[in-house]
Amino acid sequence: MLDIASRPFHEEFAGKRVLITGGLGFIGSNLARKLAALQAQVTLVDSLVPEYGGNLFNVDGIEPLLRVNIADIRDPHSLRHLIQGQDYCFSLAGQTSHLDSMTDPYTDLEINARAQLYIVEACRKYNPGIKLVFASTRQIYGVPQYLPVDERHPVNPVDINGIHKVAGESYYKLYGKVYGLDCCVLRLTNTYGPRMRVKDERQTFLGVWLRRLIEGEPILIYGDGAQLRDLNYVDDVVEAMLLAATHPAAVGQTFNLGSQEVVSLEALAKLMVELNGRGTYEKIPFPAERKKIDIGDYYSSFELIHDQLGWTPKTSLAQGLAATLAFYHAHRQQYW
Amino acid sequence: MLDIASRPFHEEFAGKRVLITGGLGFIGSNLARKLAALQAQVTLVDSLVPEYGGNLFNVDGIEPLLRVNIADIRDPHSLRHLIQGQDYCFSLAGQTSHLDSMTDPYTDLEINARAQLYIVEACRKYNPGIKLVFASTRQIYGVPQYLPVDERHPVNPVDINGIHKVAGESYYKLYGKVYGLDCCVLRLTNTYGPRMRVKDERQTFLGVWLRRLIEGEPILIYGDGAQLRDLNYVDDVVEAMLLAATHPAAVGQTFNLGSQEVVSLEALAKLMVELNGRGTYEKIPFPAERKKIDIGDYYSSFELIHDQLGWTPKTSLAQGLAATLAFYHAHRQQYW
Repeated sequence: MLDIASRPFHEEFAGKRVLITGGLGFIGSNLARKLAALQAQVTLVDSLVPEYGGNLFNVDGIEPLLRVNIADIRDPHSLRHLIQGQDYCFSLAGQTSHLDSMTDPYTDLEINARAQLYIVEACRKYNPGIKLVFASTRQIYGVPQYLPVDERHPVNPVDINGIHKVAGESYYKLYGKVYGLDCCVLRLTNTYGPRMRVKDERQTFLGVWLRRLIEGEPILIYGDGAQLRDLNYVDDVVEAMLLAATHPAAVGQTFNLGSQEVVSLEALAKLMVELNGRGTYEKIPFPAERKKIDIGDYYSSFELIHDQLGWTPKTSLAQGLAATLAFYHAHRQQYW
Repeated sequence: MLDIASRPFHEEFAGKRVLITGGLGFIGSNLARKLAALQAQVTLVDSLVPEYGGNLFNVDGIEPLLRVNIADIRDPHSLRHLIQGQDYCFSLAGQTSHLDSMTDPYTDLEINARAQLYIVEACRKYNPGIKLVFASTRQIYGVPQYLPVDERHPVNPVDINGIHKVAGESYYKLYGKVYGLDCCVLRLTNTYGPRMRVKDERQTFLGVWLRRLIEGEPILIYGDGAQLRDLNYVDDVVEAMLLAATHPAAVGQTFNLGSQEVVSLEALAKLMVELNGRGTYEKIPFPAERKKIDIGDYYSSFELIHDQLGWTPKTSLAQGLAATLAFYHAHRQQYW
């Protein structure tokens, strides 16, 4: 299916050793599939914490091409061993739920801050030549002071998760500057696609919308539906990660991802209903605990990564959502 | 000595219960002395970790006016108990050494991040009406992009200590916004004065300079001595803290401290030698591990706290240094 020899990134990754933390999760598993196709020697680290994104079905069919190592990144000993000898590490494991970070801030601290420190410390001590990509989030900007939000926008997190993601990405940047580690930070906006968590809103609101749509329940929009968002299809995010790991101009940099297509939540719900061929949506009042940490309109400028690394998202929202709906109609029993 | 009734802050603090974490340290103990004079019921929490600033002599002579509780803020149980019933909490305990934060980032994380989370969580659950002041640092700005540095300057820490101080102050601000805790953050610049640590550079470079001067050793300046700094005498910082705790305009705010007197390191060394009546200084090359995390010239704009709370530092550098030298000439044996 894949014409490997002619594909970009084959030269950079064929035969190379790649570690992906959170590798059984949404983005990690999509990245793993791509890297396996590029003939990399991929090791996935995942703890399969039930509330997080890891799912063994995410690597269904490619298991022989991968090494799956079940471990928690909060365990510094496993990590210290696993990091050695790797050419690349994609640091994707994280606690992603904003609400969980408010009810259990210490777990968020352990995963999004302390464990990231374990990773950069292990690299510094045992593998200083490794190339590192850290998945950060637009959440760190908080309520936008202007739109689109570029990388110079002040960092002003509105929840514990955002505070710890700031610390997390700061470790990578600091270890880059002080110890010369080769690190790139990507600040992801809403990412969606096959293999995302749809059980609940812990990873993305879109997962729950999609599940309800497929189940024949109305999509529930918090508020008036006028809020603007940009979304990236996971394949485009995977491409950004491969660029971040290999492009010489990526070293030491922090880039926003984002999309040309800015959409209101109501327009997004409409489009999903349309693509699904049936379904409805409803607007309901914001739950109080969500309103407190809501950021209003958000969309990114991704001009910097476009200029520096040549990245542009290639998948339209309609294409991406159609592919995602098709995936979950086919594999519902693995994700519900 | 003190004409208590006529002094400002008497009304706000007389009979009030005040907790000071890091209360046996440099700034904490000076604050405690002031609060005791204002007839507050002061409890000091300090762990007396030998590498940090705590020193029992710092409360010499005022012990009967205080409650000293030896505990580590990394212990959530003690803190949960101690926070209850307090009217004010000055959160001053911290790991302050930039170099130590690089060699032992986990301890810095525990004290400057996790323990601060314990404090705000304990306040949220057991004492939501408390007034909180958090001592942050100019270190979070990193290398200045412009001078003087105001509060809108991007946060860009150059060491692990800075990363965790950002997290620490973010907790206070977040809990203010989301849970309505009454918090104010002060970003301190170099503070000096009686009761500072002079054993080493962990708290401030000025302590070691002063110790060497009194010992008859040359003051050692790293680099060419042209680097600019602003310094605050501790009494002025104490006044800022009392304002931060009591002024209605302080709630939810973040303020720089700073000084009108901006001075080069060489000019500062000269002034200290002059005030001491004898001594010398030498310029030596930057130690490599310091150069990596050095920030070059720095001085703050304190316009915002001046406008909002009416604060201005009142002690000139010459006055403050003279008082400090006199203190250490008299009490050398307690601090060496």
